[in-house]
Formats: sequence, C-alpha cells, structure tokens
Amino acid sequence: MKIIHTIEELRAWRKTVGKVAFVPTMGNLHEGHMALVREARKHADHVVVSIFVNRLQFGQGEDFDRYPRTLQADAALLEKEGAEVVFAPDEKELYPRVVQQYKVDPPAIQDELCGAFRPGHFGGVATVVTKLFNIVQAEAACFGKKDYQQLFVIKSMVDDLNMPVEIVPVDTGRAADGLALSSRNGYLSAVERAEAPRLYQHLTRMKAAIEAGERDFAKLCEETQADLTPRGWQVDYVEVRHAGTLKPAMHTDHDLVILIAARIGHTRLIDNIEIKV
Amino acid sequence: MKIIHTIEELRAWRKTVGKVAFVPTMGNLHEGHMALVREARKHADHVVVSIFVNRLQFGQGEDFDRYPRTLQADAALLEKEGAEVVFAPDEKELYPRVVQQYKVDPPAIQDELCGAFRPGHFGGVATVVTKLFNIVQAEAACFGKKDYQQLFVIKSMVDDLNMPVEIVPVDTGRAADGLALSSRNGYLSAVERAEAPRLYQHLTRMKAAIEAGERDFAKLCEETQADLTPRGWQVDYVEVRHAGTLKPAMHTDHDLVILIAARIGHTRLIDNIEIKV
Repeated sequence: MKIIHTIEELRAWRKTVGKVAFVPTMGNLHEGHMALVREARKHADHVVVSIFVNRLQFGQGEDFDRYPRTLQADAALLEKEGAEVVFAPDEKELYPRVVQQYKVDPPAIQDELCGAFRPGHFGGVATVVTKLFNIVQAEAACFGKKDYQQLFVIKSMVDDLNMPVEIVPVDTGRAADGLALSSRNGYLSAVERAEAPRLYQHLTRMKAAIEAGERDFAKLCEETQADLTPRGWQVDYVEVRHAGTLKPAMHTDHDLVILIAARIGHTRLIDNIEIKV
Repeated sequence: MKIIHTIEELRAWRKTVGKVAFVPTMGNLHEGHMALVREARKHADHVVVSIFVNRLQFGQGEDFDRYPRTLQADAALLEKEGAEVVFAPDEKELYPRVVQQYKVDPPAIQDELCGAFRPGHFGGVATVVTKLFNIVQAEAACFGKKDYQQLFVIKSMVDDLNMPVEIVPVDTGRAADGLALSSRNGYLSAVERAEAPRLYQHLTRMKAAIEAGERDFAKLCEETQADLTPRGWQVDYVEVRHAGTLKPAMHTDHDLVILIAARIGHTRLIDNIEIKV
C-alpha cells in the first residue's frame, strides 16, 4: 500500500491504473470506514482512501483542532482491508492559497437540518469533495449513510454538475448496542457512551410506530425530544423527511427517513433510519 | 464529424477515444473560434467543440434571446477545420431542473471589470464550464484572450478546484482594421461597425505610451474615455491591470493588460491588449 502526500504523485500514480474506487475520509478510521473500503473494492480493482481533516467544513468553535489525527493506525487498518493508496495531503497541498477561492455553493438544503446548526458546513464538504474528485478521478466513490444529508448533497452535486463518478451509498455500521459508528464517539465519557445508544433506540421506536400506521410525525419527534432533553441531551433536531428529496415528509410518502442530531456533553452525534411504507 | 445533442451519447463516444482537446463556444462561429480549433488540434487528436448559449451567464435585459443561433453554418465551418465532435445540447439537457442547483462561486474578481456591469455573469460561466468539463473530460481546453477576464476566471478555477485539464490561451483574432472578432459584431450597424475599431486604436495608443515610459495609467484611461464618450460610446471601464493577477496595475509591474468595455448603440464590445515592460 502506498501513502501519497502530494497531488502530483497521486496524479502520476493515477495514470498507471484503470478503474479506481474512492473513499474520502477525515481519518481516525473505524469499522464503518472499513465497510466503505470493502464496498469500494467491489467497484474497482484499485481503491484510493483519502485522509484529510478539512478545515473548510468546520465552523468556528467546532472540533477542527481536537479532531483526532491517527494516520499510522489508519494506514495499518487500510492495508489489512486491501486499499491500494492512501492519499493524505497536508493543508498546504489542498489549500495552497490558505483561502479557497472558488467554492461549490449548494442550494437551500445546505441551511436545513445539520446545515442550520453548522453554517457553511455543506459548502465546505461540497468544495473539498469536488477537489478530491478532480484529483483522484475515480469511477466510483463510497459514502456512508450515517451522514445522510452529506450523502444527499454529494449525490445531488454530482448529478447537477455532471461529475463523471458514481456515488455508492453504504449502510451505517453500528456497535452491538446500536450506536452508529463515528470518529466522534471517541470523545464520549463512559457515562455518555452508555447513554449514546438512546438515539438509535428512538429511531427504531419511531420507525416501528410509522410502520404500524402512525402518521403524526410531529408527535413522534416531540416524544423523542421530550425523552432526551431531561436526560441531558441537547437536541438540534429530530425530523421525518422524504428519503429521496429530503423535503419534509408528507403523510402519503412511501420513502421516509428519520434524522436526528443531538449533543451529549461536548459531543454532537447524528444518526438516521430509513423507512419504506 | 458527429453532431451530438445528449450527454449520454457524448459520454459513450468519449469512452472510445484517447486524449481530447475541447473548445467551449456559444456558437455563431467566426475566424476567432477557428483559431481556437486549430490550437486544440495541436493538443489532441480528437477535438470537441461545444455550442451552447448559456442562459446562466446572461443577466436580465442582456441579449440571451437575440443571441444568434446558427448551428448548421457553425457545423460546416467546424467540419472544414477538422473538429471531430460538435456537442450541442439543448437547455433541458444541461439544465434538466430548469434552475441549476449547485453553482461554482468565484471570488471577488467576479464583481470587478465586466463583473461590475454583468452581475452573476462569471458565476454562470464558471458553472457551465465546470459542467462541460465534467461531461467532455478533455485533457486540454482552449479559450480566447479576447475574453481576458473569463480566461482568468477559468484558469484560476481550474487551479483552485484541481480540475484535471490544461487551459490553453489563444490570441485574439482581429479584422483587418483591428476590431476584435466577436459574435456580437454582427449586431453593429454599418456606421457602428466603422466606429468600432476605435477601441483597439486606443488600446494600441495606450500600449505605445506605456512602452515609451508613461506610468500615469489613470491619465491614459481618462484620455480614452474622454475621446470615446463624445463619439457616442458608453464606456463601462478602461483599466490597466496586472496581466497575471488582474489586480490594479502598480507602476513597478512588468506584465500589464489594458482592458476596455464600451457600448455603441445597443452593442457591448470588449477588448484588451497585453504589455510587457
């Protein structure tokens, strides 16, 4: 496995191989990322995993500085999983002018759900993913469903800007108790970690209720919020949306997704669950 | 020569060939475009010319509706010049949702020079060129220096977003009397056409003065404006800028460009001239 730090070297390697599948990450890899790599291997003989903590998608006061950088451990995991190239540029390589001049500007969805609490986040994601796509020139790229809104933004961007890459969604990896795998789980204290699976418990409860015929989505969301808040959670949102368009769900929709974002202590967790009715 | 109207067919053709050079145009082709095609042929065996009048780069009250559509004549010229593919999508093909959702947003230069008079123009250019680059996947793309600020925006965008394409600048084609070739010259009445070369005459006069040591750029620009206005021109701007950065010129700069934009009757003409001192 090669660890490549420069765009020039990545481009030179790219010219020597055929179809490539790509997994963009911020590193601090866990089993959820490994599922992305395994999926990528189904789409091409050559798998590139990027590791880059992208300042552009972090807001003021967010965890950019303390986000874990664990390149050696990440590389060991990726080697075992059969990735061929780790692309790990430093900030100067991707942002040589410090300030990115040209940005991909997503539509109004960037200000909803997580976007309402993280201004500029999805523009930063769209921009860095565009840059990475242009560098890696992969035929396919894998994104986890855990970041459901991010996956939606990337899919829409690729479609709308005619980017020549297939976006492959991958199911959320979960701990035995249901907690969605996330690098940010490492921030949790033991007490917080024990409490954290409650997000997924509420998602499954709400899903069961909807499958049983409940259509008062607002009531379901309020129940979740009413349970979480007294337990010390700060709930950013709980919403039922159309799974395909991310528009607020109508009672007649068949493809739904429940999305939740909540903070426990200093850690912000997100999760979601899809429903077909 | 193939005329291709759909993205799907273009992508299918693209898979069958090696290196491609690309010339994006809005059609109504003239000798200036042919110079772009000839330059493109030096860069690849396969040349794609796109013809698409891009609504997104026209402002309210601009000439989108009356912009000449002359596909058959354009195709005949391109065939003679050795282009292999004409990509001529209709609006629904490039903008299937009518409104483009994801846009490439250029930095502050988009609001200067022509951008000050055409709000949103360079964002529209950057976005459609990004889409066309993603569709055509050319190794090189040729742009005329006549649209100097556009060339600057495209070059900066490609660099900043790491797009895998080489941008090739091509010198401005001119009529015998110096007028820069432009599709919009076709709007000129006989009287206006006779007056139009005065733009280039002023550019050469200013260039000669600077080469002779004049460094009062503002005075030179004011002289030009003072000559043009009484003759019926409405001058949008005359400016001396750094040729590499498009920042306002310093007296110590060695690479300069004088840019001018002015309206005569209902027609807006632009031109520029580079100076090495």
